[in-house]
Amino acid sequence: MSSGTGITPRGQDFAAWYNDAIMRAELADYSPVRGCMVIRPNGYAIWEHMQRALDDMFKATGHKNAYFPLFIPQSFLAKEAEHVEGFAPEVAVVTHAGGKELDEPLVVRPTSETIIYAMYAKWIQSYRDLPLLINQWANIVRWEQRTRLFLRTTEFLWQEGHTAHVDEADAERETLQMIGVYRRFAEEWMAMPVITGRKTESEKFAGALRTYAIEALMQDNRALQAGTSHNLGQNFAKAFNVQYQTAAGGMEHVWNTSWGVSTRLIGGLIMTHGDDVGIICPPKLAPVQVVFVPIYKTDTERAAVMGVCDQAAHALRQAGVRVEVDARDGLKPGAKYYEHEGRGVPLRLEVGPRDVGQGQVMAAKRTGGKLPLKLHDGLATEVQHVLDLIQNELFQVAQARRDQHSRRGVTKEELVEMMAGPGGFAYAGYCGDHACESAIKDETKATIRVLPDEEFRSPAAPATCVWCGRPAVTEAVWAKAY
Amino acid sequence: MSSGTGITPRGQDFAAWYNDAIMRAELADYSPVRGCMVIRPNGYAIWEHMQRALDDMFKATGHKNAYFPLFIPQSFLAKEAEHVEGFAPEVAVVTHAGGKELDEPLVVRPTSETIIYAMYAKWIQSYRDLPLLINQWANIVRWEQRTRLFLRTTEFLWQEGHTAHVDEADAERETLQMIGVYRRFAEEWMAMPVITGRKTESEKFAGALRTYAIEALMQDNRALQAGTSHNLGQNFAKAFNVQYQTAAGGMEHVWNTSWGVSTRLIGGLIMTHGDDVGIICPPKLAPVQVVFVPIYKTDTERAAVMGVCDQAAHALRQAGVRVEVDARDGLKPGAKYYEHEGRGVPLRLEVGPRDVGQGQVMAAKRTGGKLPLKLHDGLATEVQHVLDLIQNELFQVAQARRDQHSRRGVTKEELVEMMAGPGGFAYAGYCGDHACESAIKDETKATIRVLPDEEFRSPAAPATCVWCGRPAVTEAVWAKAY
Repeated sequence: MSSGTGITPRGQDFAAWYNDAIMRAELADYSPVRGCMVIRPNGYAIWEHMQRALDDMFKATGHKNAYFPLFIPQSFLAKEAEHVEGFAPEVAVVTHAGGKELDEPLVVRPTSETIIYAMYAKWIQSYRDLPLLINQWANIVRWEQRTRLFLRTTEFLWQEGHTAHVDEADAERETLQMIGVYRRFAEEWMAMPVITGRKTESEKFAGALRTYAIEALMQDNRALQAGTSHNLGQNFAKAFNVQYQTAAGGMEHVWNTSWGVSTRLIGGLIMTHGDDVGIICPPKLAPVQVVFVPIYKTDTERAAVMGVCDQAAHALRQAGVRVEVDARDGLKPGAKYYEHEGRGVPLRLEVGPRDVGQGQVMAAKRTGGKLPLKLHDGLATEVQHVLDLIQNELFQVAQARRDQHSRRGVTKEELVEMMAGPGGFAYAGYCGDHACESAIKDETKATIRVLPDEEFRSPAAPATCVWCGRPAVTEAVWAKAY
Repeated sequence: MSSGTGITPRGQDFAAWYNDAIMRAELADYSPVRGCMVIRPNGYAIWEHMQRALDDMFKATGHKNAYFPLFIPQSFLAKEAEHVEGFAPEVAVVTHAGGKELDEPLVVRPTSETIIYAMYAKWIQSYRDLPLLINQWANIVRWEQRTRLFLRTTEFLWQEGHTAHVDEADAERETLQMIGVYRRFAEEWMAMPVITGRKTESEKFAGALRTYAIEALMQDNRALQAGTSHNLGQNFAKAFNVQYQTAAGGMEHVWNTSWGVSTRLIGGLIMTHGDDVGIICPPKLAPVQVVFVPIYKTDTERAAVMGVCDQAAHALRQAGVRVEVDARDGLKPGAKYYEHEGRGVPLRLEVGPRDVGQGQVMAAKRTGGKLPLKLHDGLATEVQHVLDLIQNELFQVAQARRDQHSRRGVTKEELVEMMAGPGGFAYAGYCGDHACESAIKDETKATIRVLPDEEFRSPAAPATCVWCGRPAVTEAVWAKAY
């Protein structure tokens, strides 16, 4: 089963494959600090492209960036009852600073609702100040017991949007809009299909009225929660006294939303597209979209081949393609292929003396298949076309796999079998009683990922609860999750 | 002396003016956490433009971004003797996490040399791995006793470059290259003239062999250290055992550099260009470069004027200009002028019915002066030209002021008078004995900002030390500093 690349095959041990693929691509490394990872340049470059795309989408929907303190007074966390219950067990606490013990310990932010809404109370006076639409790019600390690179680390990078609105309807509109933005980003940029829906009471954010999520299915048929958006209601507004004067002159508490995605997305990208050779970057997020590998034996050949590579690379760069020419001497083409495949570069262009003679380059798609491309003025357009094909192919393959591992209208027995065996998304009826949700989790380790949005629901609404047989109030999607 | 804007005039109380200007522009706010500020959207947008420009310059010089942990084991900090002495007194310490006391306390990074070079020891094997050129954008915590918005806060945002090289010459080349990058950024983007040079032993970075800095003169004639670049020698390489195999096969410790600028630059921008009305953004860094203010009385006038604003704004945006149209109803043009002036928008375009009739708009420069601009296809080019003029004007004015408050060849008496009175940069001879440096600091509060680079030195090298009269070994620049 060995793929000959020093990487554990996915079918043998998916978790080992995941770590191997990250190491081979040099995306990240373990640090000397428990549970904290180092994001290496190859991994951080993917994050930068994700940030740029998301940030553009946030700004296009009227949001502005700001920055709030890393530290939160311990008393702030306690002001919203559910919130403190959810986060207090996993915070890191600064007790000493500047050589002295602090009067009040400071919590390293596990999320920033409390510190941000304390500021909003100062900034918001009137309905004219609303909606207030702010996003923050920041590092977050949650003291996790079991950590995995990108998926669950003590410190991680994320963005958190925090908004304030005049009423519930406007907050709900924002909450859903941002889940829509996340879905679009997952599908169009990451080529990662997702289902959207609402979380149950037990799975929602600590302090939220309602939580919505995007959920993707990884290649081991476990679900990954890839982004969440919360309608916080007036819970934090009341805890932090964020009030505004209405147009009519009365005072009302604002309605808040918060929403976030993190470096966990990189884990999702890896586990959606990687193969036994290593990671595959969707072209839109690939730090290097195209790598030229020159092939030559003599100095004369080298000069001719390199001339063609440099000229073609220049033309591609002019057209906005992210290109690298791997001109390293003393490394054979095969060794270069191996390295760039492991790093997930979506398209390799091989240029040998015979190609130059024929006025072409040989294009090798990271997803498989080779085709010659003519060296002419239209090369950049053709390369862009091939990159688009790869982007599209990655999405189609991932979606087909997801659909293949989704089963609708499962019975209790099928649910148990599915979760004991192949995994996947199980769609079935749910009575709405937490006792059933809890029993299913105990017995199968599966949780309700979402109560799916209309678009994702089965054509016929399930009549009964998959577990207790009582009438179903909704359809739910179960899976074992990261 | 009141400027009628609710801002303390600079001449009355520069520190009060500084805070007032920040509040009026809504750049930042005080937070409930001691010494920590909130960077509001208007301030953060300036930082984003600074980041983008600097990041492009770092990448153009071969650097890649990465991310290292926020936490540093306390023992790491202690591995380099000068380093721990410099930073230990001002660190914040996490002693508890996940509900338990930690075995080893974790320091919140005051700078990342130790954690980064611990990783470099793992990544660097051979001379082929060098130079290793990495930069990190991150938050930093130093427990400062006295804090000021942007200039000195407990937490701040910065970038820190960390590189490893085969020998001292290559490390020195990098150290100087990055001071050159900072100088170019300060002058070309911030329109802030700086002098460059080397720090004395007592002012250098804790753990460095040599520190270089860019120093600017603020409007109150106090110096601002705006960026530093350190040749760390082999100090950290030896402490963290970062070795590489040479081409000849032997083992050597690498040579490191580190260099950084922070959100302090925003303070420098404010204190270099602001006037008694508020801040002035250099066009290249202004979040909004051009604001259209429509002027109208009737609905008909409004329709005509807004049509012109929208069309012209569209043309400017197409040309890459950052434009806002202030279409708010119920706010008089004067109130809008007031707001945008306070926010430092470099160019205001006023559009009234008469302007529309004459096919023009009235351009008001934030630096003073009005001129009509014709509404035709060349508008974007003309606006860009005016923005370039403003950028250039800001630099010229700042440089003239700096030069006016720089005195060369000062005597001991003049140095004392200057520092007791108007302040500024005092150039004089220095014997190289720390006793003189220390005595001057005690008596005048002035420190040696830099031993200036050749370009900034006086035509004739000073013969004697300004303080003790012994032979001078170098020229030095003294100032009271932030």
